[in-house]
Amino acid sequence: MTWLDLPPDGLFGIDNLPYGVFSPSGDAPRVGVRVGEQVLDLAAALDDPVFARPSLNAFMTQGRTRWTQVRARVTELLTDGRHQRATAPHLHRLEDMRLHLPFEVADYVDFYASEHHATNLGRLFRPGGDPLTPNWKHLPIGYHGRAGTVVVSGTPVVRPRGQRKSPEAASPEFGPTRRLDIEAEVGFVVGTGSRQGEPVSVADFRERVFGVCLVNDWSARDLQAWEYVPLGPFLGKSFATSVSAWVVPLDALDAAWTSPPARDPEPLPYLADTGKQGLDLNLDVHLNGHLISSPPFASMYWTGAQMLAHMTANGASTRTGDLYASGTVSGPHADECGSLIELTAGGAKPLVLPDGSTRAFLEDGDEVTVNGTAPGPRGGRIGLGEVTGRIRPALGDANGRILPAGHES
Amino acid sequence: MTWLDLPPDGLFGIDNLPYGVFSPSGDAPRVGVRVGEQVLDLAAALDDPVFARPSLNAFMTQGRTRWTQVRARVTELLTDGRHQRATAPHLHRLEDMRLHLPFEVADYVDFYASEHHATNLGRLFRPGGDPLTPNWKHLPIGYHGRAGTVVVSGTPVVRPRGQRKSPEAASPEFGPTRRLDIEAEVGFVVGTGSRQGEPVSVADFRERVFGVCLVNDWSARDLQAWEYVPLGPFLGKSFATSVSAWVVPLDALDAAWTSPPARDPEPLPYLADTGKQGLDLNLDVHLNGHLISSPPFASMYWTGAQMLAHMTANGASTRTGDLYASGTVSGPHADECGSLIELTAGGAKPLVLPDGSTRAFLEDGDEVTVNGTAPGPRGGRIGLGEVTGRIRPALGDANGRILPAGHES
Repeated sequence: MTWLDLPPDGLFGIDNLPYGVFSPSGDAPRVGVRVGEQVLDLAAALDDPVFARPSLNAFMTQGRTRWTQVRARVTELLTDGRHQRATAPHLHRLEDMRLHLPFEVADYVDFYASEHHATNLGRLFRPGGDPLTPNWKHLPIGYHGRAGTVVVSGTPVVRPRGQRKSPEAASPEFGPTRRLDIEAEVGFVVGTGSRQGEPVSVADFRERVFGVCLVNDWSARDLQAWEYVPLGPFLGKSFATSVSAWVVPLDALDAAWTSPPARDPEPLPYLADTGKQGLDLNLDVHLNGHLISSPPFASMYWTGAQMLAHMTANGASTRTGDLYASGTVSGPHADECGSLIELTAGGAKPLVLPDGSTRAFLEDGDEVTVNGTAPGPRGGRIGLGEVTGRIRPALGDANGRILPAGHES
Repeated sequence: MTWLDLPPDGLFGIDNLPYGVFSPSGDAPRVGVRVGEQVLDLAAALDDPVFARPSLNAFMTQGRTRWTQVRARVTELLTDGRHQRATAPHLHRLEDMRLHLPFEVADYVDFYASEHHATNLGRLFRPGGDPLTPNWKHLPIGYHGRAGTVVVSGTPVVRPRGQRKSPEAASPEFGPTRRLDIEAEVGFVVGTGSRQGEPVSVADFRERVFGVCLVNDWSARDLQAWEYVPLGPFLGKSFATSVSAWVVPLDALDAAWTSPPARDPEPLPYLADTGKQGLDLNLDVHLNGHLISSPPFASMYWTGAQMLAHMTANGASTRTGDLYASGTVSGPHADECGSLIELTAGGAKPLVLPDGSTRAFLEDGDEVTVNGTAPGPRGGRIGLGEVTGRIRPALGDANGRILPAGHES
């Protein structure tokens, strides 16, 4: 089936073949496909300069027909023994490679598509009111995030500082966040853009979207709570958003499509499903190596196709490299929440880790890893890789003055 | 003073010299400097390929010292008669040129920095409550907008469609916005970026920011009202944002600096002024050729320097080409508001134009032009150019289906 020596139940077999950007030590970043614990140098293996670039964008611009052709050709190279001699030299051990942000992010939008998450957050942020706002079941709520601070998995995250105000205080103070949180999400990467004034329909999702990645939308809950009325999250989110190094193409997810939950009320016609457009992805969240949650993506109220249709319903254009993420994935059960603020009831019930330590929110030095899998086309599962990051201490002093470089605490 | 034949009181004399991107018919876009009704081809006049590109970004990346050098050299070429023979062939008549988006927009952030505007909008969107939210005087509120739909002045704006719900209706409907509005703003263009984790101080504003442009942040008020709680404006704004074709460098605005209004309470230390950081710019808003408002930028509560310091206080990086806009500029008087929703009391008191027609919000075919001026260094004024756009009818039918290309109404 393949001339490669791959474990039969591995998450990165020839049914997966996700794309990323890697560089051998000292060499320029280029596009590769992961197989097992190796990466195939596509520019070399396919003799095509579109892959000799530091992002997937040029390739993604070529469109779905080409994406399918390249995937078929890579599969052929890795399965037909006649190609072994020519292909094997272009496989590199992953452990020797540096991985980069796989695509240049054009616009970044974050949705809020989990009913369980939105309900949990609504109770915490607006106690006493209806947890879901009146619009929530009529449209996928979203907002634009900061594209320039999207970083690849493994990039350290500096604890952000900002304004926070406790309810009893008369005025806000400035300092490092005390409520640093995660949001485990799934991201959709737009491969081919659309013109201004021309909405993308729900049915066009598979034509436009290249693939999915994992996202951790780091969040400073105290900054967010003070700033977010009336124009939404800003500095509470914009300091960093981490994405996995591998983009799994939609072509690898054929076995993952599933029906989304029943909707009541029925969405407006431009948001109507045109098939099984939910995705049965399983996420796992680890804090310092301990599994703390397993959010089920199949429970999301709104699908990626609906998000894209809504995002463009007003005629907004899209571009190659647009990233839109689902919002926190939270299932109906207590151990299926994708954020600490949900897992700890707003910090009131800290997690107890197996080593006896407790966490309401993240401490300096903590490492969070989100990984995920999807059903594979021949049974078994394929991997979505992981998105990981470690918290570094805040810079500067509490008044917002920054110490000279090299003097950070 | 100059060998050019310029009117003595013109807005684009040698004290201004704004930058833009232009193309002669059939030729590639490149960077130019406007003087009078002509544009100087910088790549040709300075024999420098950094200007032979379709955006200002490569030049802006070179930093403030270089910006000042180039401005001095261009001034020399246009004032010293010895350069006339070599320079004149590189001047082109503006009326023969096409103007392009002057910079590649990295991230786009829109603030909400006018106390008068925020108060007026708060009364309309949240009747009965405090018009200003509790955070408003502690921090410059802002949110990320859609960078991919920033367009150059003159680009037609297609009336957006979307969900809107009247208070008496049980559920939302989908269709073209009925409350299409403008927001007259001033935009700041980041020239040199900053690294993730390293805030930019108020004092560093002039080092980082290349110049200013005019912005019209088109807004669909009915879409916005239905969607914006809890995560802020999204489709009500993301369909189009227009910017002027000329970026006026900060070096041309030396005479425009002024003290901002008194602040109460005093902002936190990281937002403290480090000099006269307000800008005394005058805007004019025209609807179908009629002056409808004259918003004074000097009345803004928060300065461009404070916006930049706040935007990066959490460690968010900036990039060359980041655009951040002030939010609607509205002064204390009724004829100084930068949006129709304010000028017409939420549509209740339509404007009566000199031709007898009335407008609560924009109709198809309407043209809105915002222009502006600043004090010049030798008395008189310099021009900020204009940002203009005409409304085209919405596409498709009311259910969100799009008619085939060429069949739009």
